[in-house]
Amino acid sequence: MAVIKVEIRSGAYYDSIILMQLQRSLADQPGIIDAGVVMGTNANKEVLAQSGMLVSEAEIAGADDLLIVVHGNDETSAQAALEKVDELVSSRRSHAGEKDYRPHSMETAGKMLPDAQWVLVSVPGRYAAGVARQAISLNKHVFLYSDNVSLEDEISLKQEAAQKGLLVMGPDCGTAIVNGIGLGFANNVRKGPIGIVAASGTGLQQVSVRIHQMGSGITYALGTGGRDLSEAVHAITALQGLDLLARDPDTKVIVLVSKPPSPIVADALVKAARSVGKPVVVNFIGYATASRRVDNIFFATTFDEAAELAIRLINSSDDFNVEPDISKFAPGQQYLRGLFSGGTLQYEALLILQHYLPVVYSNAPLDKRNKLGDSLVSKDHTVIDLGEDEFTVGRLHPMMDNDLRIRRLEKEAADPKVAVILLDVVLGYGAHGDPASELAPAIAASIQKAKDAGRHLEVVAIVCGTDGDPQGMENQIKMLKDSGARIETSNDAAARYVGRLLQAIERSIQPVAKPTMKQVDLEMFKKPLAGINVGLESFADSLTKQGAQVIHVDWKPMAGSNERLVNILERMRKK
Amino acid sequence: MAVIKVEIRSGAYYDSIILMQLQRSLADQPGIIDAGVVMGTNANKEVLAQSGMLVSEAEIAGADDLLIVVHGNDETSAQAALEKVDELVSSRRSHAGEKDYRPHSMETAGKMLPDAQWVLVSVPGRYAAGVARQAISLNKHVFLYSDNVSLEDEISLKQEAAQKGLLVMGPDCGTAIVNGIGLGFANNVRKGPIGIVAASGTGLQQVSVRIHQMGSGITYALGTGGRDLSEAVHAITALQGLDLLARDPDTKVIVLVSKPPSPIVADALVKAARSVGKPVVVNFIGYATASRRVDNIFFATTFDEAAELAIRLINSSDDFNVEPDISKFAPGQQYLRGLFSGGTLQYEALLILQHYLPVVYSNAPLDKRNKLGDSLVSKDHTVIDLGEDEFTVGRLHPMMDNDLRIRRLEKEAADPKVAVILLDVVLGYGAHGDPASELAPAIAASIQKAKDAGRHLEVVAIVCGTDGDPQGMENQIKMLKDSGARIETSNDAAARYVGRLLQAIERSIQPVAKPTMKQVDLEMFKKPLAGINVGLESFADSLTKQGAQVIHVDWKPMAGSNERLVNILERMRKK
Repeated sequence: MAVIKVEIRSGAYYDSIILMQLQRSLADQPGIIDAGVVMGTNANKEVLAQSGMLVSEAEIAGADDLLIVVHGNDETSAQAALEKVDELVSSRRSHAGEKDYRPHSMETAGKMLPDAQWVLVSVPGRYAAGVARQAISLNKHVFLYSDNVSLEDEISLKQEAAQKGLLVMGPDCGTAIVNGIGLGFANNVRKGPIGIVAASGTGLQQVSVRIHQMGSGITYALGTGGRDLSEAVHAITALQGLDLLARDPDTKVIVLVSKPPSPIVADALVKAARSVGKPVVVNFIGYATASRRVDNIFFATTFDEAAELAIRLINSSDDFNVEPDISKFAPGQQYLRGLFSGGTLQYEALLILQHYLPVVYSNAPLDKRNKLGDSLVSKDHTVIDLGEDEFTVGRLHPMMDNDLRIRRLEKEAADPKVAVILLDVVLGYGAHGDPASELAPAIAASIQKAKDAGRHLEVVAIVCGTDGDPQGMENQIKMLKDSGARIETSNDAAARYVGRLLQAIERSIQPVAKPTMKQVDLEMFKKPLAGINVGLESFADSLTKQGAQVIHVDWKPMAGSNERLVNILERMRKK
Repeated sequence: MAVIKVEIRSGAYYDSIILMQLQRSLADQPGIIDAGVVMGTNANKEVLAQSGMLVSEAEIAGADDLLIVVHGNDETSAQAALEKVDELVSSRRSHAGEKDYRPHSMETAGKMLPDAQWVLVSVPGRYAAGVARQAISLNKHVFLYSDNVSLEDEISLKQEAAQKGLLVMGPDCGTAIVNGIGLGFANNVRKGPIGIVAASGTGLQQVSVRIHQMGSGITYALGTGGRDLSEAVHAITALQGLDLLARDPDTKVIVLVSKPPSPIVADALVKAARSVGKPVVVNFIGYATASRRVDNIFFATTFDEAAELAIRLINSSDDFNVEPDISKFAPGQQYLRGLFSGGTLQYEALLILQHYLPVVYSNAPLDKRNKLGDSLVSKDHTVIDLGEDEFTVGRLHPMMDNDLRIRRLEKEAADPKVAVILLDVVLGYGAHGDPASELAPAIAASIQKAKDAGRHLEVVAIVCGTDGDPQGMENQIKMLKDSGARIETSNDAAARYVGRLLQAIERSIQPVAKPTMKQVDLEMFKKPLAGINVGLESFADSLTKQGAQVIHVDWKPMAGSNERLVNILERMRKK
């Protein structure tokens, strides 16, 4: 008759690999059907229950207890298997003992390999923060593979590290590739011009793998841990990584990947990415965007698409460092006034402008909070749809009758705070037969008046039409150009141009304070990777296989396994 | 001394073109500085005020009064100008009278041009619903240019028309192109294979113009009015237009454009577009999507991008009509079970699956409402991240240890309701040295067990790795393939494949009821356009210029201008 036997060992520490191997060895013993070797957490006990191995003697095991269960064909086999536990464990241990001398502390390891820039930490979660803190105190970057680390520890570790110009990748950081060497789980990916920062393990792997499969490669792939883009952590590591890749001359394109992020933090990270002067592909899972591109930022929605976009951008001819010339404007000129006849063109312009200007008022805004109190009176940045119902009672649409728009144009142009006027000119059947004949003189006069008053008025006109339209598109464009207006045929290109211009003015008035975070030393970072490994031995083996220098620490929890004490001791040591 | 003189005419009706021309003629009179001729709405009075012409005598004018204001150099000039009003108006009228005989009613016009499929309505808003209702009663499609029409009227007009297989484009519909003829404001756009439906006037114009500029052209461009995608109207016209273009053999690609829509209505329209069997480009302003593509739906975020995408899709080799083969599954097999080792791969799969399956449960869902009560027990469609913290206390990550996943796989595969198993196999340094050697036999056994029980189990494995990975990617793929699994190297392709499969099963269980709306007669619609024009004469002229047949109705409001009465009479006439 089948029998289940249980043994509970309290306070014993074995690493996860030993537990897995012990379970397998037990299951391979004669007369054994199945075996379980786990820490006695509720989740683990449930798993045992599903395999029919959670008998009442096992239920009392606590989360810190090692729980060994064997399911044998009979009493004798089960008992015999259990009695072999120590032998099986020590055979594993002696096997390990055959290797070279191993230090028991990180300090000793650090002395043995002084060039090590990294400490890899994969000890159980409750010990991980303490070990990571020690690594930071030794001025090492930390690859923190361990999960089950608290959010408070994550924040304090990252803040502490950032002040020293060090990275804490993780906790629960599955992967990274630094100078061609994979940390944790990492694929063998070719070197190339793309750098990745990822709050996502397999996201980083899938993007890097795709880049390799498509013939390109990477400089760095920096994991941050899946919670880095949460509101609490606020992307500390991702911002450091972005800054590092921005400064790295070998990185031509940056890819940012994340598990579902906090929208606020995602926005902040994207904002930081706007100023790196390189193309940045953004793929944050579930981060819905209403625009596909904003200047140097390209939004992707799948890993494959992110990789494809990144490769396409390597040889982009766009210069992402160009700052618009705002020297021609007089002091005080800072606002946009958009005078649209087309409602949807106005909406599209607002959609794009929201990436450049904090608030744009309108009589038909995208966000009701930005609705003008009085449609006839502009306020700061304002864009108006003159075709709205309020303006067309007993009056022709502004595509047919330019009167109202010209009156408004003159008024806005006379405002010394106005820098840019944006307007659309829609051609085609049904519209005014020759709009430029009326608009161009008004534009020219407005520009001249501003000039006479010592200002520069920038007028941008979007012309919507075809070569077959009755007004003659070419001639309409010529008249408007001659009036001094800049002509665009793309509404979004016009909105982006205007956005960049006004943003530059805004920045010149209120320069953005640069964060005072200590930067990661790029030169050190680019040296051949060397590391100290604390935890899973297989990660050390993996570094060795890849040709990196590594010292594996023969780590065990401190006496009593009191992780709170370990943490306190560690904090005291730092002071 | 400059003088402002005012005249108010109550109950008089003039169309907007006459008002504009009168204003210009008055301003051109000797000694006149400026003039205003408007209906006395508050908005219009404010505009007068801004030009300094709202004197106290003008302020008493009501919204139904015609307000004439002249700003003269002196009393005599101002008075002389005002006295010329009747002469100026009647000279405009007699000019109009030189043309051919014009019917005074839509009925008469309908008899004069029985082939007319369309009535164009551009009378003032308060009369527009009545005129449109009359057009519907005569079985005509309505191009309703007029704005200032109530939402209730819009809904009742559209519902009435839809029951008869007629379109109501509008109110406030600026533009449409039907059989090469532009209605309202429309550009001269080449004929071609792209059809447009747009709840947006200038959006439609800009997209069609861009298509033309890039060398292609359109079949139809159907305006719907900017409120069509509001929750109240619920896309009545857009759904009719989509159905029409889906049936039109000349339309190869469909573009849907809208001003900011109700997200619910936008979702419903996109859902309808999923089943048209043609590529559909969607550009709804501000409608943020977390995916770029779902099967035949391609999301664009600017008009230019929408046009580019549409042109690229004309010669797409994808067949958007393929239905997956689900005959191999046994009755009752209907659920997905996803067993991921990679957390972000799991998230991406969930992101994509939400377009196919109403609810997918998970221990790490995108939407908290879909969180599994017990991570160890699947429910309907379930996708699990086995690398979550809850599973890794004292246990190796599933990328290193396959034990937990294989146990779960066996359990899910034994469930007679399960049709598809989806799993990832992540290769690379640090991961299990030969995962396929353990997973493949388990997959093969599960497939065989299902087969023995008369079922078909579909297993899809995503392999993430490179040709340089230590496990040997090619060999891993071969082993998994030999086990009977379908292999994908793209996570999103795998999720899309699985999604389509399960959606097809779901549809076979619960077929979607087709709406019973009467379809627009495509054959009639494709005949050369002929129209009856009520309102702005320039729209009739524009049709004539384009070579279409048109009858202009010499319309005036009914006696007393009582629009409520007009509406009631119109409703009575129908019954």
